Formats: sequence, structure tokens, C-alpha cells
Amino acid sequence: MTDSLATLAQRLQQFAQARDWQRFHSPKNLASALAVEAGELLEHFQWLTEEQSRQLEAERKAEVAEEMADVLLYLVQLATVMEVDLLEAAQRKIERNERRFPAL
Amino acid sequence: MTDSLATLAQRLQQFAQARDWQRFHSPKNLASALAVEAGELLEHFQWLTEEQSRQLEAERKAEVAEEMADVLLYLVQLATVMEVDLLEAAQRKIERNERRFPAL
Amino acid sequence: MTDSLATLAQRLQQFAQARDWQRFHSPKNLASALAVEAGELLEHFQWLTEEQSRQLEAERKAEVAEEMADVLLYLVQLATVMEVDLLEAAQRKIERNERRFPAL
Amino acid sequence: MTDSLATLAQRLQQFAQARDWQRFHSPKNLASALAVEAGELLEHFQWLTEEQSRQLEAERKAEVAEEMADVLLYLVQLATVMEVDLLEAAQRKIERNERRFPAL
Repeated sequence: MTDSLATLAQRLQQFAQARDWQRFHSPKNLASALAVEAGELLEHFQWLTEEQSRQLEAERKAEVAEEMADVLLYLVQLATVMEVDLLEAAQRKIERNERRFPAL
Repeated sequence: MTDSLATLAQRLQQFAQARDWQRFHSPKNLASALAVEAGELLEHFQWLTEEQSRQLEAERKAEVAEEMADVLLYLVQLATVMEVDLLEAAQRKIERNERRFPAL
Repeated sequence: MTDSLATLAQRLQQFAQARDWQRFHSPKNLASALAVEAGELLEHFQWLTEEQSRQLEAERKAEVAEEMADVLLYLVQLATVMEVDLLEAAQRKIERNERRFPAL
Repeated sequence: MTDSLATLAQRLQQFAQARDWQRFHSPKNLASALAVEAGELLEHFQWLTEEQSRQLEAERKAEVAEEMADVLLYLVQLATVMEVDLLEAAQRKIERNERRFPAL
């Protein structure tokens, strides 16, 4: 359980509370912050070929992993303030995609 | 275990394999797709006040949850192709933030 | 003069006034809207190779041009509410880039 | 004429040629770069209220103007490689919006 999204959500809630940051964490602001982080993630790839993007060196890969973490942290916080069950929403979406795009 | 990110990752890998979509799923393309979905998520909030964003009606909230799911699905797929452990990266980032922004 | 950015800015100001939309057009909201449109623009390219992106068919190209127009319209409106001279800012940025990245 | 978008486009073309950067400037890559800059622009506003975003101090405003310039520079370069007339596309879009959203 220590690795789960639920644990992450709790820890982030305590983090925000301890800094009195919850007043900044409206869904509107968290969605903006997530889009900003998605841009920082994309920045690592913008001038690479697809092939190069598949073969990042270790240092660059660590930077990319950190941006991915930022995206996840804002997504989890948005899910908390909106009371959305992320994994349930993800499973529903996969099922919809499975119906929408039949396998070969 | 059925709810975990690992299970989600496996299911998405099978989904892509069954459609022969893995050739499209370079890190560069997945990072683009994630940024596009982050934009679609933000679109729901762009003209709302922060206050309104805290009080979405059920239908709008369901649409927002679906966009959040899309973000998560691409993030998990990017983690798979890059062999990044998302939860570990998230925990490292929280620890860094805890050192960087001391509690009040 | 009918084609200039200044004329575009004026026309957009009248458009917003005639619909009482100026109250929505805070810099924060316009920057969000611009990011959303940048995502819609990127969506057209997300699964294409770079080569394919250089050879769009006419219909797709017209859709891309429309998304580019949306980006420009929000950028011009943001410049109006922030009283930024876009072309002057662009020229300053080019000069900075010319110093920062010497020619071969 | 020295201030026009056309002049800007020419100058950017020379800038890219002099650095042999045109091979990086596929529409796909330029659309990514534009989305990244749109994120950097949005970053300035993500934790501000709308009211605060209307009253930026001079230093912050100059930083925002620089990000707006970056967005315009990539948009103009994308228009060049795609042979899109930006101002014409913008005018067409305004006319479409005028029909779609009647004035009060």
C-alpha cells in the first residue's frame, strides 16, 4: 500500500496543508499547473527525432522522469480536490477505447 | 492489485499491441499526446472563476474526469516505454519539494 | 494597414465589447485559452512523422491554419489587455537570440 | 513595413538558415515548441488570481512579454514552413466567430 496513488494523495494533502497552499489549489489552478508541467515534459523532446527520443541518455532520462512526476503530482492533487477516483476513471476510459477501436 | 498503476500499464500495453500501435508510441509522440490531453483538461476551466471551478455540476465533472483519465493513460504509457517507475519518481519529487519548501 | 496586427487587435476588442466578454478576458484566462489552442494545434501532428507533417493534404492544412489563427487571436488579445507591443517584443527576442546563438 | 509579420518571417528564416536549423523545423516540431512556450507563458499566471493577473508589476510583465514573443516567433515560423497566411487565416476565423456568436 505504501506505493499506491492513495498514499501519494494523502502525502500531497499533508504537504499542501502544512504550507497553507490549499487556497491556491482550485481545480482551475491545478489544471493550469498540470498543463505547464506537460509543456516542460514535452520540451525535452521537441527537437529530437522519434528515434532519438527512444534512446535518451541516463541524465536526460532522469530529468524526464522528474517532469513526469510533476505531472502525476498535479493530477493526483486535482483528483483529490475534485473527488475523482483516478484509477476508476482510467479503467472506464480504457473500456470505452476498447469498444471504440476494435483490435485487429 | 487490480487497481494498481502496474495493472493499468499492462492493460495499456496489451491494448496497443492488439492494434499494432506501438510504432506510434515513441516517447516524443506520447509526450505530445499528453500535452494535448492536458490542454483538453484545461479547456473545461479556462473561462470559469476559481470559485466556479470548485463547484462543477455532475455532467461537467464527469467530462473532466475523462480528460484526467486520458492524461493518466498517456503518462502510464510513457512510463512503460521509458522504463520509468512513476510512483518512485513521484516519491523522490515529493521529498525534494519537502526540502525545498519548508513547512510553516 | 488593413492586414496589420493593430487592425486585428482593434477588431477583436470590438468583438469582445459587443458580446460583453471583456470580463472573461483576464490575462490569466487568455493565457489558458492560448495554451488550449496550442494543444489543439499540436493534436494534428501528434501521431505523424516529421516527414508526414511536412506534407499535409489540403483539408488537414486548412484545419491547422484555423488552429494557428486561434493561437494568434488569443495572443493579440492578451497583448491588448497587457498593453504589450507584440512586434517590438518579438524583435527584441530575435536580437537576444542572435547574440545567444552565433551564426555558423 | 519594418514592423510587419512578413518582415519578422523573413528575419526568422535568415536566422534559421544561418544556423542550419531548418532541418529541425518540421511543422510537428514547431507545433511542439509553440505548445512548450504557451506553457511557459501560462506558468506566470498559474497561481495568481485573475485580478492579480491584471496588475502585474513591471518586471513580471517584461518576462510575460518575452514568452509572448516566443509564442509569436514559433507561430510565424510554422506559418512559413506550412505556407499559411497568418493574417488571412485570422481574419477568416474572426468572420466565422462573428457569425457563430451574434453580438448582444
